[in-house]
Amino acid sequence: MSTTVAKALSLLDHFSESEPEIGLSELARRSGVDKATVHRMLGVMCDYGLLEKRGDARLYRLGAGVLRLARVRETAFPVSSVFQQSLDSLSAEIGETAHASLVSGRALATIGISEANRGSRVSLVAGEMLPMHSTASGLVVLAYARPDFVDRALSEPLAARTSRTITDPNILRARLQQVQLTGYAESDQTNEDDVYGIAVPVFDNNGDPAGAIAVATPAHRMTNDLRQQIITALFEQAEKLTFSTGGRAPGSFAALAAKVRQG
Amino acid sequence: MSTTVAKALSLLDHFSESEPEIGLSELARRSGVDKATVHRMLGVMCDYGLLEKRGDARLYRLGAGVLRLARVRETAFPVSSVFQQSLDSLSAEIGETAHASLVSGRALATIGISEANRGSRVSLVAGEMLPMHSTASGLVVLAYARPDFVDRALSEPLAARTSRTITDPNILRARLQQVQLTGYAESDQTNEDDVYGIAVPVFDNNGDPAGAIAVATPAHRMTNDLRQQIITALFEQAEKLTFSTGGRAPGSFAALAAKVRQG
Repeated sequence: MSTTVAKALSLLDHFSESEPEIGLSELARRSGVDKATVHRMLGVMCDYGLLEKRGDARLYRLGAGVLRLARVRETAFPVSSVFQQSLDSLSAEIGETAHASLVSGRALATIGISEANRGSRVSLVAGEMLPMHSTASGLVVLAYARPDFVDRALSEPLAARTSRTITDPNILRARLQQVQLTGYAESDQTNEDDVYGIAVPVFDNNGDPAGAIAVATPAHRMTNDLRQQIITALFEQAEKLTFSTGGRAPGSFAALAAKVRQG
Repeated sequence: MSTTVAKALSLLDHFSESEPEIGLSELARRSGVDKATVHRMLGVMCDYGLLEKRGDARLYRLGAGVLRLARVRETAFPVSSVFQQSLDSLSAEIGETAHASLVSGRALATIGISEANRGSRVSLVAGEMLPMHSTASGLVVLAYARPDFVDRALSEPLAARTSRTITDPNILRARLQQVQLTGYAESDQTNEDDVYGIAVPVFDNNGDPAGAIAVATPAHRMTNDLRQQIITALFEQAEKLTFSTGGRAPGSFAALAAKVRQG
């Protein structure tokens, strides 16, 4: 039972800004489920508005139902809009691309981007799912997540996204301990060539990581000064976001944030 | 198989602005499925970020995943933002509440609201599912929908929302024919006491109704002059929206719209 629902829901993960429409055969191929079954699953998801089929085209896209659901969630618990303001001030202040992601089930979903207003900048895909092990945002979330969440994340196949990606769970666990000592995570081209990311966590009302905000720069542009400027700005915004969304940071993180604040 | 996925997805329909958080027992009661099964379904939906459980509270709410999905859809096919602009000008021009809904599977989902800036006005719940048979938006969508869509909508149980709601499918079919003669639908307290609604359809690229925009007033305030003003404004905005979202109206509707435009 659960497996069927999981298979159906996992189809949604394939849709992103770079692939807003996908055909039946492609979805069947990627999910490893036979075409007839996927077709029936897609039909049900269309019935409930999560997907829709564009007219006579053979392609599926996300349905109007997701707009309704997002509106309900955002009206009751405003997060997207609050994060976007922080991202806009980060990218304006630093001149590099800022982005935010939230823990969404066992994955990390990009929910906001503010691109720097300059020609050479890191471009991100809206609505992309971020790998946990290869991104600064993923690492900083794992560093503050509960053990069972970390165990599950590290027990999944860890793709080598670049030649620098760490895919050994034990080395990753050691990385997470380092991250806990500083309160932020860095990824130097471990998720994408030539992209350097720095991320700081935002916490929910239980003190668990709700997600992360991050700044991404072309790797060659990262200097010690810029690094320090980004870290300071991220901590400031992350504390604001935790507070304004009703969260609370664990004591260990709050102490690190206070140190950064005092320079 | 399909039934299980359908049951799981139908749980999402219960969440709205007026009920952003719901507990397990209540969801089990409403869906008519046993608690253990609903609990497993909810677990899978949490895994995929469609729902989340708030900390130690026993309540479920929509998850961050729906924000991601809405962002993907809206970036690739901007609709919410475009509709919102139209609604804002409608409510400013007319001084009454304007709202938009989109066909979402077999239902109609409110995706935008612009409330009039006055004390006495119709208040709507963001993200609510609208009944097809008792609302002006539902009727105007059915009037232009394909026969199988209408058959399915009218074969479901039709709730008497007020003492004026029409629940007889045959009388409703006659109403739909009347709506086709004018291009707009009216609901005089058939969905809610003291609320008068007028709606005009917006079409997709196949000429099928994508949804509707509507203006709702307290019933006692509706006059012939106001009615005419609302209809004219709705047709103008609906044609703009159909055009700007890449849709095309069927010839019969375009002819009616042209007549309204010429006064």
